[in-house]
Amino acid sequence: MPYVNIRVTREGVITAAQKLELIQGTAELLERVLNKKPSSTFVVIDEVDTDNWGVGMESVTNLRRREAAGKSAADQDKK
Amino acid sequence: MPYVNIRVTREGVITAAQKLELIQGTAELLERVLNKKPSSTFVVIDEVDTDNWGVGMESVTNLRRREAAGKSAADQDKK
Amino acid sequence: MPYVNIRVTREGVITAAQKLELIQGTAELLERVLNKKPSSTFVVIDEVDTDNWGVGMESVTNLRRREAAGKSAADQDKK
Amino acid sequence: MPYVNIRVTREGVITAAQKLELIQGTAELLERVLNKKPSSTFVVIDEVDTDNWGVGMESVTNLRRREAAGKSAADQDKK
Amino acid sequence: MPYVNIRVTREGVITAAQKLELIQGTAELLERVLNKKPSSTFVVIDEVDTDNWGVGMESVTNLRRREAAGKSAADQDKK
Amino acid sequence: MPYVNIRVTREGVITAAQKLELIQGTAELLERVLNKKPSSTFVVIDEVDTDNWGVGMESVTNLRRREAAGKSAADQDKK
Repeated sequence: MPYVNIRVTREGVITAAQKLELIQGTAELLERVLNKKPSSTFVVIDEVDTDNWGVGMESVTNLRRREAAGKSAADQDKK
Repeated sequence: MPYVNIRVTREGVITAAQKLELIQGTAELLERVLNKKPSSTFVVIDEVDTDNWGVGMESVTNLRRREAAGKSAADQDKK
Repeated sequence: MPYVNIRVTREGVITAAQKLELIQGTAELLERVLNKKPSSTFVVIDEVDTDNWGVGMESVTNLRRREAAGKSAADQDKK
Repeated sequence: MPYVNIRVTREGVITAAQKLELIQGTAELLERVLNKKPSSTFVVIDEVDTDNWGVGMESVTNLRRREAAGKSAADQDKK
Repeated sequence: MPYVNIRVTREGVITAAQKLELIQGTAELLERVLNKKPSSTFVVIDEVDTDNWGVGMESVTNLRRREAAGKSAADQDKK
Repeated sequence: MPYVNIRVTREGVITAAQKLELIQGTAELLERVLNKKPSSTFVVIDEVDTDNWGVGMESVTNLRRREAAGKSAADQDKK
């Protein structure tokens, strides 16, 4: 009876179809590897604001901004 | 100093009074069974969207839809 | 289909009977308050070393030591 | 940068190879569905004692015992 | 590669700047104490409604109300 | 009344003194940034086996092995 908690940043919309794919993919994985019955696998998806998620001393909000800036700078350089 | 995390699907409204019952019932349970002081028991309730909770290869959203359909089909049969 | 995670310090032994009481008490509470079927309530108990649990700037290990010392000092005073 | 926590009961040994399959399967799933880079997906597996996991008002320890008894009773009946 | 989950009650607004301070302070702490690279430390902040957080048999909502009432009663007494 | 859960891989021994530093550093951080009283901040440290922690499609066990091999190969090259 596994419990799986998937935590991801909320960036754009995660559709109900994508969530279902995560739910099914997780249950299948646990059945394949550990022989757990899908009927007793719980999957809970938490979507977290990019301001509330940090990595490498910065928030994901800032990280994405910097990535976008870097990309647009790189685009500029090409011209 | 226990920490208890109650995660439930958000279906209809869970009232402040119901949340209080969960908080008090949990603190009482931990006092009764493990002699933990209620003043140092934290209870945190997470309400999770039914799209974000999966069981048995489907989301709770779909599960409830199917249950409702089954019920209304059964009601039809009775007539 | 609730998921409840009870985290407590590991102080002395928590018996299987006590764990069962926590499991049943939690499932009953969620049935009583939110009408959740006990058959789909998961309860997971985590026992945490007192060195690994902190409150008020100290570990529970130190807190218990200080409480015991205070108690024995109080016992001394009474004589 | 997803964080995935897989909690399962500790029944028999879960090998390092099986854990690796869970780690890789999870990272692949998140890449396929949400386009998350595997290099920034964390997977943490918690193995929980069967005494510490409850479902349907009983511990998994008791549930497994009852399942084994039911099975052996069924075997008896066949003779 | 630590994962740190900070759960606090949502009281007033927690600004992006404050969240960043928590993210950086946590990564620095883990680098200083355990020599963990900040680039592989994840920090996730969960803001929880005061109705959904209980301590000492009451919700934080009620606790804050009682504190405010006590304070205003004390102010009255002074006059 | 914050609850902070620090999850790290168990590599070598994390001493009680180091755990205390994490506990105090976390409580201080939350007091400084969000004005939370240290007396009501819980810090719980989970030490996780390197086999049970995955990042970038491999377990930390394998990652450390590869890092050590790379380092010893580099040392060889220098000679």
